[in-house]
Amino acid sequence: MTSVRIPIVQKILSANDQMAAQNRQLFSDKGIFTINIMASPGAGKTSVILQTIKALSGKLRLAVIEGDTAPVTIDADKISMAGVPAIQINTGGDCHLDAAMVSDAMKAMQLDDFDLVIIENVGNLVCPASFDLGQHANVLIASVPEGDDKPYKYPAIYRGLHALILNKTDLLPYIPFKADYFFAGVDALNPDLAKFPMSCMSGEGVDAWVEWITAQVKKHQAG
Amino acid sequence: MTSVRIPIVQKILSANDQMAAQNRQLFSDKGIFTINIMASPGAGKTSVILQTIKALSGKLRLAVIEGDTAPVTIDADKISMAGVPAIQINTGGDCHLDAAMVSDAMKAMQLDDFDLVIIENVGNLVCPASFDLGQHANVLIASVPEGDDKPYKYPAIYRGLHALILNKTDLLPYIPFKADYFFAGVDALNPDLAKFPMSCMSGEGVDAWVEWITAQVKKHQAG
Repeated sequence: MTSVRIPIVQKILSANDQMAAQNRQLFSDKGIFTINIMASPGAGKTSVILQTIKALSGKLRLAVIEGDTAPVTIDADKISMAGVPAIQINTGGDCHLDAAMVSDAMKAMQLDDFDLVIIENVGNLVCPASFDLGQHANVLIASVPEGDDKPYKYPAIYRGLHALILNKTDLLPYIPFKADYFFAGVDALNPDLAKFPMSCMSGEGVDAWVEWITAQVKKHQAG
Repeated sequence: MTSVRIPIVQKILSANDQMAAQNRQLFSDKGIFTINIMASPGAGKTSVILQTIKALSGKLRLAVIEGDTAPVTIDADKISMAGVPAIQINTGGDCHLDAAMVSDAMKAMQLDDFDLVIIENVGNLVCPASFDLGQHANVLIASVPEGDDKPYKYPAIYRGLHALILNKTDLLPYIPFKADYFFAGVDALNPDLAKFPMSCMSGEGVDAWVEWITAQVKKHQAG
């Protein structure tokens, strides 16, 4: 089986990379900085995005591309209600977004209207790591209840990151989580990562994250 | 791309189904009941397995097949230290176990020695749902911090389940989680499911789960 399968997968990845490069160029031509947010299911991707929308309101023009495996608009509705355009992609059961899906979403957007596009990938710590979408930065949201051993168990996704949010720090008093062990695992894989402990319940860490993302957008737009 | 890709994927699934059927037959011939435990990363698969091992000690003979995407033995070590044989499968970055991997693990086991084999799948709420391994029952571990909307967002994995554990109920006081909304979503997809709210911290719900799994083993062995 293997000898048949591998060439096909390589072709798909290569076609994906080409389309991702086109997406990235188009985003850049329009002065848009784009981030790909990845996480386990339930790590708090939508909550972090909602905090980001609130903090950037009136400062940067945002849109969100929302990836879901099923035709439910739970997250897209929350984004829309926060006053930001949300474009939903239903992957039809697929475990990750790909560049063609993002390209389709871009066609449904007025790209001249935005400074920052946030792509919320499907909740999954494995597959999204292998598919370039045309983003400028990869962001992972880990969360305290997932446990401190995740960098050791899912190393691939940590390697390609530009920023890491450790969400749900408000739960630290109730959960055995060794932050030193967690961050030692992260640093071994990706020492130059920007790291943001955060709680969307208390608001802790949101300012530092928003400062970072704003600086990235400004740097990108300054060329 | 699609017209090239689909036939290949079908062939792989069909070969997987054939091997899964062989695995299931061999497990049954040896009087072994086998469960496939699936979950998000960090939902508590290993913690539930450790509680199960403790409760079944001296009552049923257990082995654990441990799926990981990376060559780390964190979970397998915990199982071994609990006194139960652990066979680790490193998927080499793949997002799910398949029947061939389980078949390889079975060759490394003395199958006459066991009543119950627990397969701990890779942490992922999407991909493992599509691959039969040769198990007799599928079990999902959801957890309170993941949020109450997961059945709506990841419906495929809920449809094929025989039992559902809702883990980390000890965190309910600290997290907005509407149990009614969660279980309404579960019931709409899979009304006949056995459901076990559980806390591996307090031990709540472990007895009911262990009673259920023991009954399944006895029923299977009675033929």
